[in-house]
Amino acid sequence: MSSRFAPLKNDTFLRALMRQSTEYTPLWLMRQAGRYLPEYRATRSKAGSFMGLATSPDYATEVTLQPLDRYALDAAILFSDILTVPDAMGLGLSFAEGEGPRFARPLRDEQAVRDLRSPDLASLQYVFDAVTQIRTELAGRVPLIGFSGSPWTLACYMVEGGGSDDFRTVKSMLYDRPDLMHHILSINAAAVAAYLNAQIEAGAQAVMIFDTWGGALADGIYQTFSLNYMNEVIRGIKREYDGERIPCIVFTKGGGLWLEEIADSGADAVGLDWTVHLGKARALVGNKVALQGNLDPNVLFAKPEQIRTEVERALKAFGKPGPGSGHVFNLGHGISQFTPPESVTAMVSAVHEISRQMRA
Amino acid sequence: MSSRFAPLKNDTFLRALMRQSTEYTPLWLMRQAGRYLPEYRATRSKAGSFMGLATSPDYATEVTLQPLDRYALDAAILFSDILTVPDAMGLGLSFAEGEGPRFARPLRDEQAVRDLRSPDLASLQYVFDAVTQIRTELAGRVPLIGFSGSPWTLACYMVEGGGSDDFRTVKSMLYDRPDLMHHILSINAAAVAAYLNAQIEAGAQAVMIFDTWGGALADGIYQTFSLNYMNEVIRGIKREYDGERIPCIVFTKGGGLWLEEIADSGADAVGLDWTVHLGKARALVGNKVALQGNLDPNVLFAKPEQIRTEVERALKAFGKPGPGSGHVFNLGHGISQFTPPESVTAMVSAVHEISRQMRA
Repeated sequence: MSSRFAPLKNDTFLRALMRQSTEYTPLWLMRQAGRYLPEYRATRSKAGSFMGLATSPDYATEVTLQPLDRYALDAAILFSDILTVPDAMGLGLSFAEGEGPRFARPLRDEQAVRDLRSPDLASLQYVFDAVTQIRTELAGRVPLIGFSGSPWTLACYMVEGGGSDDFRTVKSMLYDRPDLMHHILSINAAAVAAYLNAQIEAGAQAVMIFDTWGGALADGIYQTFSLNYMNEVIRGIKREYDGERIPCIVFTKGGGLWLEEIADSGADAVGLDWTVHLGKARALVGNKVALQGNLDPNVLFAKPEQIRTEVERALKAFGKPGPGSGHVFNLGHGISQFTPPESVTAMVSAVHEISRQMRA
Repeated sequence: MSSRFAPLKNDTFLRALMRQSTEYTPLWLMRQAGRYLPEYRATRSKAGSFMGLATSPDYATEVTLQPLDRYALDAAILFSDILTVPDAMGLGLSFAEGEGPRFARPLRDEQAVRDLRSPDLASLQYVFDAVTQIRTELAGRVPLIGFSGSPWTLACYMVEGGGSDDFRTVKSMLYDRPDLMHHILSINAAAVAAYLNAQIEAGAQAVMIFDTWGGALADGIYQTFSLNYMNEVIRGIKREYDGERIPCIVFTKGGGLWLEEIADSGADAVGLDWTVHLGKARALVGNKVALQGNLDPNVLFAKPEQIRTEVERALKAFGKPGPGSGHVFNLGHGISQFTPPESVTAMVSAVHEISRQMRA
């Protein structure tokens, strides 16, 4: 345990990632610090803007801790955005209200691609400061997860200039100028590894790579243009720091068909969305990796009894964790901003209670 | 061969669907009659609106035939929209320019669901008239495909009231009031079967069920709320008419993980998107069904050489069609409106040439 920080009181999440036995199935939620919580909206409004929130270590710490005060979650995740990295590369990130992210200077021609450089980590110091402050204020309650977008997912935003429903611009470059795409992805992979290492040095106790858009790629193309670069990131990050193992989770949304290849990435755990049957996934990966997931966030719009039924279905699909396996409960995607906060209470209780019963 | 229509000169597509041997791999494109073609845009502009186009048998015939005049495609597909059925149920369909479909009266409460009725097929006579007119004007060049949305995909639009990126409204109903969702889906299944049968009687020589949003569902939920109702449709449609076999294709976009179950639906062929490896898919389904797909439509933004490379990769992934197998080449989703028309020329030649060579 790092001497800088308080000892960890609840390490269930880390043990599940390392496929050690746990008394119950730990859980956290993607985007658990977010707009569905009134206290988040209050802080967001004090901060004035999303970027004002994300770039202030004080505010980032405040919102990171909010869901932990409300729910018995087993991990905290740094409040930040995957697009801080390309922003630090000089692409000019902004968030228009209700419109999603925009880059002022997307990579649209060869010159822009050739001019791309890995960012000066000093320009991301606000992220690392937030990590240290959150870890300090957590005071060992639960572990802190650091994260980054995957090289491919970052490239989608960097080339499209924002969100997309068909990825026409970035895929046109991929198919037409694979050399340019590989150039961007190499730079992104180095940047992501450096970014995650700096988060680990600042206090992150596990890291997650979000490959939100890998599932948009064709079979064969995914392996070459997304998975290969995540493998490069995984090879480049510290797996141990200050005497502690730092588990790494990789999550390709829509990547269920490539599970076996993702399980060979070198990551400790693989995130799964709700299209995957956890039991089948477990059979495919054996004891190679832990699994994380995978409730449809829309389940949280149902009544508590139905939430409990769906939680039970997911836990039973995985089955009783045996020696060498590990399951971290999560949603299969970020929690919706429209989620009733009391639905999360129902889910958290159901996960903890049912998973304890299953081990009894 | 029906006595009403000219004999078929090119039945390659139908033979591939029925897993009979063919001299080359036949192809057609989802949304092949569409906005990427200047001649389509000209007709669309004469018609005044999308619905003006879709509801006029003359215009529908004109645009259905346009891609066949330009490209050596092996099938025609009725120009229409999957939302004609819920429109005929009284939900009030409109298309705002550049905004996608809207229903004036979506199914938002129990009363609306209880009031839902299978449509009077007479109100869809314009579709069946178009089928007969297209088949007549095709004069046996290639077979004509009729189609419908799947019960679940129609329900998505009927409950959401339009497109959605998270399906929050329809999934809330599914998880919270599964009884209401089953009620809608039962009515939709009966309506879709009747609609497809009327298209078959009007002259459709194959039918396809588009389950565009099945892939948004969770494992287990997909089987109960989408696949089961497609199976019901398949059991309800004529598989032979006027002395001819009418093959049926089912396509769940994003359904690659459920391929074996979809192959048990009773359909003759299963459509696949680009996330699936055709060779692995073929190994999984054996000779139970033919496969259709699966190029990423964004490949068509690359240069002709790259298009050829990707076509070859898909054809080789499937492998040389052997006895009892069948492959129909297609995209994995509708062609983009921004596609350069000459890219389609390159793709069509590549499919025909390479697939002939592979059989030599």
